[in-house]
Amino acid sequence: MDDVPNHFEIKATDGQARTGLLTTPHGVVRTPAFMPVGTAGAMKGMHWREVRDAGADIVLGNTYHLMLRPGAERIAALGGLQRFTGWNGPMLTDSGGFQVMSLAELRKLSEQAVTFRSHIDGALVELSPERSIEVQRLLGSDIAMQMDECIRLPAERTDIERAMRLSLRWAERSKRAFETAPAGYLLFGIAQGGDVPELRRSSAQGLVDIGFHGYAIGGLAVGEPQSVMLAMIEEVVPILPDARPRYLMGVGTPDDMLEAVARGVDMFDCVMPTRNGRHGMAFTRYGQINLRNARHANDPRPLDEESAWPAARNTSRAYLHHLVRSGESLGAMLLSEINVAYYQHLMQEIRQAVAQGTFADLRERIRAGWETGDIAPR
Amino acid sequence: MDDVPNHFEIKATDGQARTGLLTTPHGVVRTPAFMPVGTAGAMKGMHWREVRDAGADIVLGNTYHLMLRPGAERIAALGGLQRFTGWNGPMLTDSGGFQVMSLAELRKLSEQAVTFRSHIDGALVELSPERSIEVQRLLGSDIAMQMDECIRLPAERTDIERAMRLSLRWAERSKRAFETAPAGYLLFGIAQGGDVPELRRSSAQGLVDIGFHGYAIGGLAVGEPQSVMLAMIEEVVPILPDARPRYLMGVGTPDDMLEAVARGVDMFDCVMPTRNGRHGMAFTRYGQINLRNARHANDPRPLDEESAWPAARNTSRAYLHHLVRSGESLGAMLLSEINVAYYQHLMQEIRQAVAQGTFADLRERIRAGWETGDIAPR
Repeated sequence: MDDVPNHFEIKATDGQARTGLLTTPHGVVRTPAFMPVGTAGAMKGMHWREVRDAGADIVLGNTYHLMLRPGAERIAALGGLQRFTGWNGPMLTDSGGFQVMSLAELRKLSEQAVTFRSHIDGALVELSPERSIEVQRLLGSDIAMQMDECIRLPAERTDIERAMRLSLRWAERSKRAFETAPAGYLLFGIAQGGDVPELRRSSAQGLVDIGFHGYAIGGLAVGEPQSVMLAMIEEVVPILPDARPRYLMGVGTPDDMLEAVARGVDMFDCVMPTRNGRHGMAFTRYGQINLRNARHANDPRPLDEESAWPAARNTSRAYLHHLVRSGESLGAMLLSEINVAYYQHLMQEIRQAVAQGTFADLRERIRAGWETGDIAPR
Repeated sequence: MDDVPNHFEIKATDGQARTGLLTTPHGVVRTPAFMPVGTAGAMKGMHWREVRDAGADIVLGNTYHLMLRPGAERIAALGGLQRFTGWNGPMLTDSGGFQVMSLAELRKLSEQAVTFRSHIDGALVELSPERSIEVQRLLGSDIAMQMDECIRLPAERTDIERAMRLSLRWAERSKRAFETAPAGYLLFGIAQGGDVPELRRSSAQGLVDIGFHGYAIGGLAVGEPQSVMLAMIEEVVPILPDARPRYLMGVGTPDDMLEAVARGVDMFDCVMPTRNGRHGMAFTRYGQINLRNARHANDPRPLDEESAWPAARNTSRAYLHHLVRSGESLGAMLLSEINVAYYQHLMQEIRQAVAQGTFADLRERIRAGWETGDIAPR
């Protein structure tokens, strides 16, 4: 582990919660950080300038989608993901493994690699840990993820352990494949082990022995109760080196993030703000609000008149309701930006509270807001 | 006609082409003007600030859609269309008649009104000239349109004449219904008469005898050749009072607009920039470019590096191609704003050329650009 340079600087801690700065080739990421998901090189319903304005330092791209279309070699020839997309900031890419499991057909998993048919054109594709790293290097991601096998819960312990051990061997191969990456580019390992504490600890220890720039906790937020997710975080975090960033993959709700930060997690990603936005849901300090609900039809009030985000402060609930009911794309656009801005604002509040040693107070205050459910009907 | 105040000021003419200012309660419209279409109170794929930034002074809303959802009375209670939508500029609304004909089911047309079933919830709705004006007044439109009957071409002369005469009677009723509107709000009559010169002239004369703030030419751009459209404009324009604005409804391509301006038309509306944008088409000074085409897949060049619109100048063809092929909403968003900005830029060039007496030169130069077809492949 000592051979891996550290690009993470912790500025303050408050209990287990930390705030810091993670330096990448395309810029510095303030942590705790939420990474909006730009699956195929685009955020759904948002311009990149809006993602930036909302407060995001870093976004996530999906290797599986990008390698199939437009293709990693093409993006490399066009100057890498940042140049290609116009997002001029840090990007993290996943390994592609998770989406092979969830989206592709005719998967065949071996020690060497996973073979599958593209969901776009049916082409036969092989993804190995080495190819995943090669693809992520071609994309120019600031933070690459090791390839792993993420299995659905509930699962048998023997299956969970088999996938976890395979993921550890793939972690080693991923690290070797990453050795030629220029200085400053980062590689994260991923702890697996399902809902079995012992396997989680064993996975985390195995990763630490290999040594990575940062450590992710994978295979959670796949349908298990929040209590299980938090328990697994509590198993893994004490084993991970304090100095390294910790990333909880695919999480989650604002409440999940508050609880994970309280347990020492630094980074998150989730499609929820944009996906729920497309389905008429707004995240606010009063909780999640369903704009399809008829009670908004005649309500001239905005979602939250005290929001720092203009669209949340200036757009009437009646108009949002109309847009959502009419299927107007502007509804999805406005709610996506409102939600991404809410997530980013929450991260900003968390960073500030940790720096000031008031994280516990913030957590109480935010929860009390959510519990009101919404402003009183008009 | 003399009893109708005029809010249109012609600043310069060049041949038949004119440039001027049309004053409405929500602001001044520079003419020739292109009105982007925000059907149901929203532009598809664009924020209102982008519509404004693109150079639009005025937008069009569809009475048919808005009266069915969210409803005219609801919009009125919420302060009118501008307050409801957040578009803080002039709005023109059509009468609803055209879309009753094209979208609704179980239409029944009588002298009194058209009765139809809503395509949204099947409710039985009656739309008369009086109700159309009432709805447009509730919406708070700056420019209301008389209700008319627009028939498809080709059609028998007797059918064309029947519809034209009915439209004239409805024009009178529309004007009466509009009498209580506050000063400054405008009502336009609509010349019908299909492709029959004599009927077109008769319709125009009938409207002038009634007297309106402005005059539209309707029932064109419904599939007839451009030559027929231009011939009908040439029949109608000499009959209309010079001092009043002339609006060619539902038109059209950039070339249609250049030709219509050359024949004295001042205003246009069309869904083409946004609809074609959603289908991967870009309007540029080289003509229309299909971003789905594989030749763009590896092309790092923008659509037009000299464009005044940032997205047209800064976004690579390769990225646009990828977004369009992947069905990413950002593709439709970028191409919609690029196209609306192109239309607005064309209007700006036209206004400037007419003011300088160089419209004929501009027309030649713009046409020469379109004829290049595109920049040379890379």
